[in-house]
Amino acid sequence: MKIYDYEGFPNPARVRIALAEKGATEKVQFVHVDVMKGEHRLPAFVSKNPSASVPALELDDGTFISECSAITEYIDHAFEGISLTGKTAKERAVIHMMQRRAEQGVMDAVGAYFHHATPGLGALELYQNKEWGMKQHERALSGMQYFNGVLATQPFAAGENFSVTDITLFVGLSFADFAKIAIPADCTALLAWRARMAKRTSMGGTGS
Amino acid sequence: MKIYDYEGFPNPARVRIALAEKGATEKVQFVHVDVMKGEHRLPAFVSKNPSASVPALELDDGTFISECSAITEYIDHAFEGISLTGKTAKERAVIHMMQRRAEQGVMDAVGAYFHHATPGLGALELYQNKEWGMKQHERALSGMQYFNGVLATQPFAAGENFSVTDITLFVGLSFADFAKIAIPADCTALLAWRARMAKRTSMGGTGS
Repeated sequence: MKIYDYEGFPNPARVRIALAEKGATEKVQFVHVDVMKGEHRLPAFVSKNPSASVPALELDDGTFISECSAITEYIDHAFEGISLTGKTAKERAVIHMMQRRAEQGVMDAVGAYFHHATPGLGALELYQNKEWGMKQHERALSGMQYFNGVLATQPFAAGENFSVTDITLFVGLSFADFAKIAIPADCTALLAWRARMAKRTSMGGTGS
Repeated sequence: MKIYDYEGFPNPARVRIALAEKGATEKVQFVHVDVMKGEHRLPAFVSKNPSASVPALELDDGTFISECSAITEYIDHAFEGISLTGKTAKERAVIHMMQRRAEQGVMDAVGAYFHHATPGLGALELYQNKEWGMKQHERALSGMQYFNGVLATQPFAAGENFSVTDITLFVGLSFADFAKIAIPADCTALLAWRARMAKRTSMGGTGS
């Protein structure tokens, strides 16, 4: 299988961390898509991935999967090891719900701020609505406060175990750093969780 | 289990159709939340469901699940019968991806138009950005064209079998009717699919 992505970008990072957690990084061929030159919008790529986004997963039978949470769903079911999306109906529902909250409340909110209320990716930004971007800045701060409350009562973003939600939230906060949205200093539980996550080898830590 | 909802609203309809497809409607107790009077924003409800949205699922152990796709994930795994979210890694990934496209490209786009560029729910609308709403109107039309292309080559929104994506797209189009976004007349494959879906008993049809 192949992953089309742009190393260092937020959504590609989510998939790379998921692969590392499953110990499957070596099983994937990475194909660089030059997003900064607009390669993701050229017909050759859009014909495979109508979402015109990275990352995209190409299976050995030629099937293309885009949308980050769909790719991590595939990775979780295709490889052995730690469960990222849950096993029982209840686990799956809770992780699904918290993943969506981490996306809407942090990851996507930060992204909307970055793309709408800052210069974003420059000439690649085809439509900007600054007021919308600023509203999403507010939403990102609310999302951080929400997860701070969650992490004051449980060790991981979706409960007692590490899951795909932790990946989404961790990358969302990295994206917030990049977009210069500071995590409020009173989010002590969120900050402590983040420091703990950063030790995982999948997230660039030493594992200790 | 209980479902807190408002009958006739778009997202509640998604869950009710999923339950009907699984033959599980009778196993659920429905609790009416008076959204039009703002009951979903009162502390009694928000303390259970921080998303302040309907539908919400309450499990017998008191766990609350919100976010529509998380609730349908639960329903699909908790009850026997037709699979709505796929079984293999590939099926799950494809349905997940198409579900997200149906949400972002139709359901949520129509919702954003309705809530931002029309009077929406009146006094319940706390923030409106008309320009954003109009942009989402464009996006909804693009989403319809995209699924028209998809449905010209396969019988269901996510492939060869009925899935949760068909539910999301069907309800998204009903929401578009309500919001007065007309399906383009040249979307013949989409319209034919819709007429076929409308016959399903879960969607109010006679099953013939």
